[in-house]
Amino acid sequence: MQDTHISLAHGNGGRFMRELIEELFARYLRNPLLDVQTDAACLPWSAHEIVMSTDGFTVQPLEFPGGDIGSLAVHGTVNDLAVSGAIPRYLSLNAFIEEGLEVALLERIVQSLAQAAQDAGVAVVAGDTKVLRRGEGGGIYLATTGVGVKTAQVELGLSSIHAGDKVLVSGSVGDHGIAVMLAREQFGLRGDLASDSACVLPLCKAIWDMPGVHFMRDPTRGGLATVLHEVAQSTGFGVRLQQTAIPIHDPVQSVCDMLGYDPLFLACEGRVLAVVAAEQAEAALDAWRTLPQGKEAALVGEVINTQTQVSLVTALGGERLLEELEDEPLPRIC
Amino acid sequence: MQDTHISLAHGNGGRFMRELIEELFARYLRNPLLDVQTDAACLPWSAHEIVMSTDGFTVQPLEFPGGDIGSLAVHGTVNDLAVSGAIPRYLSLNAFIEEGLEVALLERIVQSLAQAAQDAGVAVVAGDTKVLRRGEGGGIYLATTGVGVKTAQVELGLSSIHAGDKVLVSGSVGDHGIAVMLAREQFGLRGDLASDSACVLPLCKAIWDMPGVHFMRDPTRGGLATVLHEVAQSTGFGVRLQQTAIPIHDPVQSVCDMLGYDPLFLACEGRVLAVVAAEQAEAALDAWRTLPQGKEAALVGEVINTQTQVSLVTALGGERLLEELEDEPLPRIC
Repeated sequence: MQDTHISLAHGNGGRFMRELIEELFARYLRNPLLDVQTDAACLPWSAHEIVMSTDGFTVQPLEFPGGDIGSLAVHGTVNDLAVSGAIPRYLSLNAFIEEGLEVALLERIVQSLAQAAQDAGVAVVAGDTKVLRRGEGGGIYLATTGVGVKTAQVELGLSSIHAGDKVLVSGSVGDHGIAVMLAREQFGLRGDLASDSACVLPLCKAIWDMPGVHFMRDPTRGGLATVLHEVAQSTGFGVRLQQTAIPIHDPVQSVCDMLGYDPLFLACEGRVLAVVAAEQAEAALDAWRTLPQGKEAALVGEVINTQTQVSLVTALGGERLLEELEDEPLPRIC
Repeated sequence: MQDTHISLAHGNGGRFMRELIEELFARYLRNPLLDVQTDAACLPWSAHEIVMSTDGFTVQPLEFPGGDIGSLAVHGTVNDLAVSGAIPRYLSLNAFIEEGLEVALLERIVQSLAQAAQDAGVAVVAGDTKVLRRGEGGGIYLATTGVGVKTAQVELGLSSIHAGDKVLVSGSVGDHGIAVMLAREQFGLRGDLASDSACVLPLCKAIWDMPGVHFMRDPTRGGLATVLHEVAQSTGFGVRLQQTAIPIHDPVQSVCDMLGYDPLFLACEGRVLAVVAAEQAEAALDAWRTLPQGKEAALVGEVINTQTQVSLVTALGGERLLEELEDEPLPRIC
């Protein structure tokens, strides 16, 4: 592409749009199933079910330590399939690009997206771009829809959860939220924190055939506490977390203490929360800890047969309720 | 929902977002396959192929005579599957909603989207909402991804096109473009024009098993001329249109004459362009004309064995080239 910045003409269906698609998007996303000359991709399929998931991405800034909106757009949707017990196969991509976006930045984002898709074993098979007038977008918004094959043998879901089940997390919480916030520089803080943005398929695969695994979820928007509120509201059980057991990196905790955030409500983009029968919890933890992404996996709480609430047993032994999220702690975090 | 306008809290993963999803989106989109409590939908499938397509929608204004961004978001993606010879089954939906959007307007859009999906026989099975800060969106942007079953018996595609094939359109061109433009009121013009936005599945089904049908496409962004440029560039053939044969409604032509637009470059959202073997062209036209949507179907040109170009034989018998679109005639038309 000759242009250095996106203009409205890149969105009109004509020559400039064709160049944008062919010379930028297709260059990185090329695969045997992607045909930029058709409106729909025809894809082989052999299973009796398809698993489908979708997610939108508006993170600001577009690049941050540990990732960018491109890799995030792959991880977000691929992870939703993985925690549902499915192996991701195909991905569609929508890009809403603001007039004036630097083409070099767009190229880095698409390149990163392509790499993340390749790493996750998923092919981008359909796409669409729209150009938004200057001032009507935030640089770029992405949406991805994933199609996968149900592979897990066990029945995963909120309805499989029992009182007495243990709550596991695959790694530290809050890294993504704090890394993105620091990247905004609006607080004048600096740190060597990186987002946890990653594909969680290996973590899910490692435990999804264990008989006691009842539920998995990636704690993104609203964080760990928000997923557990969903668990509580849906099952009618309570969830009790042990504060000292929850892995939180020191710099994340420091920034949270300084600015008044609670890391339990901050987005993770590469972690899995699992609810597992008590007698299988150690085996699941062991399986996670053999993986590079699961070294800090921990048993952080349990499902209890009490009223519907999420509570935290503090380091001092007190117990406090974690309220459902109402305010927006960090807008445009994913 | 108690709120009258969308706030950032509707996007944070907490209680307000849950209310938005449950009390607005799910209320209209409810179907047995949509579970708002899971991140992925598990769907029955019996074919050996899936056909996948995606589209983004940024039309301004959000409501216009003959449609709105909600129904358009269904038609756009469903039509891409239909012209590929597939019956649409499942749809995912992404909504990027700007802070401050009136909830009543959002509700009308979702209701219209749900009705269009029901009419097209497609189930919305996965969705995601993000809220954009005031000034970083255009009210609402939508993206949909569709999954369908390949059904057409014939091989449809640019590579099936031969010199001598006829070019058919299922109805008048330019209605959507001009209807949206007039709805903006920026030209102080008024008309009783309506968008042609519609599901074209019945039109496609009516001809997709005819042996001479080589290619179908819905002429959206960039209009009829832009699709024909794709045909020319991909096949190496030329395309010659007959101006007097192209159905254009009088008010569309008048507005175009007045403002200097060419209706051949304006978006349609409910028309089909088909390239059909000469000996089958009349049969295909007859099949279309029996349908309410196809009454104005016409044979408008032919594929010719000459240099790669798109030309128009005018009413006076002259021939002029239709250049590939470069400027943006009407931004945010779809």
